[in-house]
Amino acid sequence: VNTFLVAIGGAWRGAAWVDRFRRLMPERQVVGLDEPFDRAGVRWAASWKHPPGALSGLPGLEAIFSLGAGVDHLMADPELPPVPVVRVVDPDLTGRMSEWIVLQCLAHLRQAPRYAAQQRAKVWDDDDAQPAARHVRVGVMGMGVLGGDAATKLVAMGFDVAGWSRSGGEGPVPIYAGAEGLDAFLARTDVLICLLPLTDETRGILNRDLFARLARDGRLGGPVVINAGRGGLQVETDILACLADGTLKGASLDVFETEPLPASSGLWAHPAVIVTPHNAAMSDPDAVGARIAEQVRRAEGGLALTDVVDRTKGY
Amino acid sequence: VNTFLVAIGGAWRGAAWVDRFRRLMPERQVVGLDEPFDRAGVRWAASWKHPPGALSGLPGLEAIFSLGAGVDHLMADPELPPVPVVRVVDPDLTGRMSEWIVLQCLAHLRQAPRYAAQQRAKVWDDDDAQPAARHVRVGVMGMGVLGGDAATKLVAMGFDVAGWSRSGGEGPVPIYAGAEGLDAFLARTDVLICLLPLTDETRGILNRDLFARLARDGRLGGPVVINAGRGGLQVETDILACLADGTLKGASLDVFETEPLPASSGLWAHPAVIVTPHNAAMSDPDAVGARIAEQVRRAEGGLALTDVVDRTKGY
Repeated sequence: VNTFLVAIGGAWRGAAWVDRFRRLMPERQVVGLDEPFDRAGVRWAASWKHPPGALSGLPGLEAIFSLGAGVDHLMADPELPPVPVVRVVDPDLTGRMSEWIVLQCLAHLRQAPRYAAQQRAKVWDDDDAQPAARHVRVGVMGMGVLGGDAATKLVAMGFDVAGWSRSGGEGPVPIYAGAEGLDAFLARTDVLICLLPLTDETRGILNRDLFARLARDGRLGGPVVINAGRGGLQVETDILACLADGTLKGASLDVFETEPLPASSGLWAHPAVIVTPHNAAMSDPDAVGARIAEQVRRAEGGLALTDVVDRTKGY
Repeated sequence: VNTFLVAIGGAWRGAAWVDRFRRLMPERQVVGLDEPFDRAGVRWAASWKHPPGALSGLPGLEAIFSLGAGVDHLMADPELPPVPVVRVVDPDLTGRMSEWIVLQCLAHLRQAPRYAAQQRAKVWDDDDAQPAARHVRVGVMGMGVLGGDAATKLVAMGFDVAGWSRSGGEGPVPIYAGAEGLDAFLARTDVLICLLPLTDETRGILNRDLFARLARDGRLGGPVVINAGRGGLQVETDILACLADGTLKGASLDVFETEPLPASSGLWAHPAVIVTPHNAAMSDPDAVGARIAEQVRRAEGGLALTDVVDRTKGY
């Protein structure tokens, strides 16, 4: 047998994914974790937050496909078998993420929360002193496929954009590299966009120490932080305290330390914070499934897998 | 004498403009309407909503400069002398208008009013079924400098964009032309952006008859109208009635039949309407003033004025 295992944890839509892969690979045995199957026959597995250990003891396993853009849910399993881990790289998801990021940058540039509050109060009050996009320096942390696309679109909108990544390299905007480039990057950044992967190195990186190094001389009246990566990247008590003391002017957050965001969080009601329910970039399940089925076909035809994670870096 | 007359009506900031032109043209006599001056000495005039007739009886007048992007305030004066009327074409203003337009398109695409209401209610509810920008057909009415720039930026964001203009022509997107192209243009439009000049032909063009011809098969659940032109282009009772009966799904309005928008208007509190206080694209007064001073210098040096309005078309 040549089984494709769909390993999904929690309350997520496991059955829909099993059905989808059965439609996409009708010639193959597709099983979910909740049904009996022969562990020795499993050659491929797709995972979203599988229960730790669920993918061990599969002697024929050749690769694991993440069903979402991040792979931190896989790296969190200490029993993850040492086979290639494949990320989703989906142009549809990339475009949706950039939509959300440009929307958030424009919303802070044009003071959308202020004007929405004025609208609710039926107040007509314009403001001569709005900066233009070219006056605002946006910094993108994480210059992979998502960061590069967002940077390109922010440039098209007129923003003054730079990037930061661990290893530097070429990109559509100037890229600051590594620990030694971080201070200069932060000092020229009015709007910080975080698209970093969640690893041991990046956990909690969006904290007071980092916020305090952002530009203080910008045209927005203070720095803005935008996180569309993972909630584990941010320290929410620091965000709230920095908003309170002026270290930050505003925030747009799609991800949170605990999701759904608890009703007790002070982020919900803060007038300068835009909260969205982790839907900045929903993957299109059909597109993701089709891409994984195609990778399986290619691999069985002797071609190399693409979008394989570097497990030493964790992304 | 060679006088530059600053003719500003209503409660607007006339004195600031007089001061600005005195700084920009220290060699010249600059006067406001509220001070005594020799009418025979006026060679140039700048206007924003001048009192009708204020520019007649100026035998030496060579041109009138509008201080804003529109010239409908000038064309409304039946005693306007038959000299060239010059529009403001300012790259800064163009960029600001495109920021506002892209912000509104993304806000409707990504259901920003819905998620803002959820945030106020501390409700975490995502939505699998959001269309991507490429699924949404945006139509730009008015393909001048502003419309062309907005269309280019909407394409960069991934939207499916077309334009409509009275005379057609080349542009960054397919352009439908004239009365005979209007039906086809509207039938393929999910989000209608109006950047038309206000003329006798366009007054009230955003009405029920036009809304009913917009696409009914789009991915947003109904058409959206976005007006950043002039309030006189829209029929607000039709907008509210069409929102109520589903002919429209949403609207973003920066301009209104009466400004400031009266507290009694149903637009303020409508959950699918985004209201801004006619500040989509504030001109930078210093940039506008410098451009007018440069035009005066060029004209006195024998060069032709640029950005002259076609008075037979009214824009």
